[in-house]
Amino acid sequence: MRIKLFLNYDGTNFNGWQKQTKGRTVQQTVEEAVFLLTGKRVSVTGSGRTDAGVHAKAQVAHFDIEDCTIPPQNFARALNTKLPEDVKVIKSELAEDNFNACRSAKKKTYQYSLYVSKTLIPLKDRYAFQLDYEPDFSLMEKGAKAFVGEHDFKAFCASGSSVKTTIRTLYSVDIERKNDDFIIRICGNGFLYNMVRIIVGVLLDIGYGKKKVEDIEKAFIEGKREELGRTLPAKALCLEKVEYDV
Amino acid sequence: MRIKLFLNYDGTNFNGWQKQTKGRTVQQTVEEAVFLLTGKRVSVTGSGRTDAGVHAKAQVAHFDIEDCTIPPQNFARALNTKLPEDVKVIKSELAEDNFNACRSAKKKTYQYSLYVSKTLIPLKDRYAFQLDYEPDFSLMEKGAKAFVGEHDFKAFCASGSSVKTTIRTLYSVDIERKNDDFIIRICGNGFLYNMVRIIVGVLLDIGYGKKKVEDIEKAFIEGKREELGRTLPAKALCLEKVEYDV
Repeated sequence: MRIKLFLNYDGTNFNGWQKQTKGRTVQQTVEEAVFLLTGKRVSVTGSGRTDAGVHAKAQVAHFDIEDCTIPPQNFARALNTKLPEDVKVIKSELAEDNFNACRSAKKKTYQYSLYVSKTLIPLKDRYAFQLDYEPDFSLMEKGAKAFVGEHDFKAFCASGSSVKTTIRTLYSVDIERKNDDFIIRICGNGFLYNMVRIIVGVLLDIGYGKKKVEDIEKAFIEGKREELGRTLPAKALCLEKVEYDV
Repeated sequence: MRIKLFLNYDGTNFNGWQKQTKGRTVQQTVEEAVFLLTGKRVSVTGSGRTDAGVHAKAQVAHFDIEDCTIPPQNFARALNTKLPEDVKVIKSELAEDNFNACRSAKKKTYQYSLYVSKTLIPLKDRYAFQLDYEPDFSLMEKGAKAFVGEHDFKAFCASGSSVKTTIRTLYSVDIERKNDDFIIRICGNGFLYNMVRIIVGVLLDIGYGKKKVEDIEKAFIEGKREELGRTLPAKALCLEKVEYDV
């Protein structure tokens, strides 16, 4: 039987999602919890990797398990007794036939949190990125619109990634503001390595007048990562939801 | 000259505000930063102590310093270069004559954050307390009203505190709700040791039908701490603001 999990994690102390030889990862931690609970070694597949330091409100994952008497919906509670405080299963259920947490994912939504303040604010800084002064929101809104649609995001991708294609579709890029805090929420059919963090960096450059909206179009055509700014820190990035066909 | 500071801190890794022989405290950390910056040993007075693990959005403090050429408003930026990431000065200014961060404080507002969820949610749990199921909000609202006014809070105070009087005035006790998250915000002229955490515990007991609103009145009259429930955890408590006479 195939179990579907919804995971919430604080990525601060994880070296990302994917299992690797060094460092603590979310995938490994969940697989270890399944083993502690059932005595079985399973392979947990996530909707996608999240990088080191990136958080998730509801990452979706699945694993297959045989000869197990635990009812699917009870895995959440049972696994949580074995999981550390920084990753928990918020819901578990029997996966539908042919469901694959990675391949069946249709849309993902990420949010990037920022706050405007001359000084670092400890109570905000764990999950948000500090901006010394306010960017121009109307310019950023224009930049956000330019990202929507199907584009070649080659320039918005960290080097070293091996993917078949760098073409992705973004369904929406929204900027939500509340006083000195704001969130940039991006929904798309898939994301390249560091893509959200590079896009948000470009939007800020536009908001500060260092780049123009036309530079986005140019980057889509030329595909040069080096023409764009730095990759913003992971701590302010959170995978908010993953959507599947109903 | 007397300098007034507004401090924001994540209390997780502090053993509270007050200087003591063991453990890292906010007071000590700020005094050390003043020393690193100016070479002078000063004594920093806070509006009041916060307990181990309690956070502050804007704790107010003051210290006196002589022969110092740093303009008062520049202390924030200068001290922040010496302070660790979990405590920062969000604003500094010259204190008015006779200002005393502790004695001049007229009102303090604390907030206690809670969330309703069957499972622990890592991204909420650092700064909020988990409730397995939903309390009755209308009962809690009634309980909240019963706390407002001048009362003897002897029963709502951890033993071992030495204070002249246990009489305090609460100006408001509000419950603010947003989906599964809620905040209990309490404003008063002063607070006893653990007082907010005990009050919130009693409000929850009322919301779960374990206590009645009349038990609050009874506790004011009888003053028995042991009749009330447990002290809720510090991590969900935050000193939001301190008000002074204008």
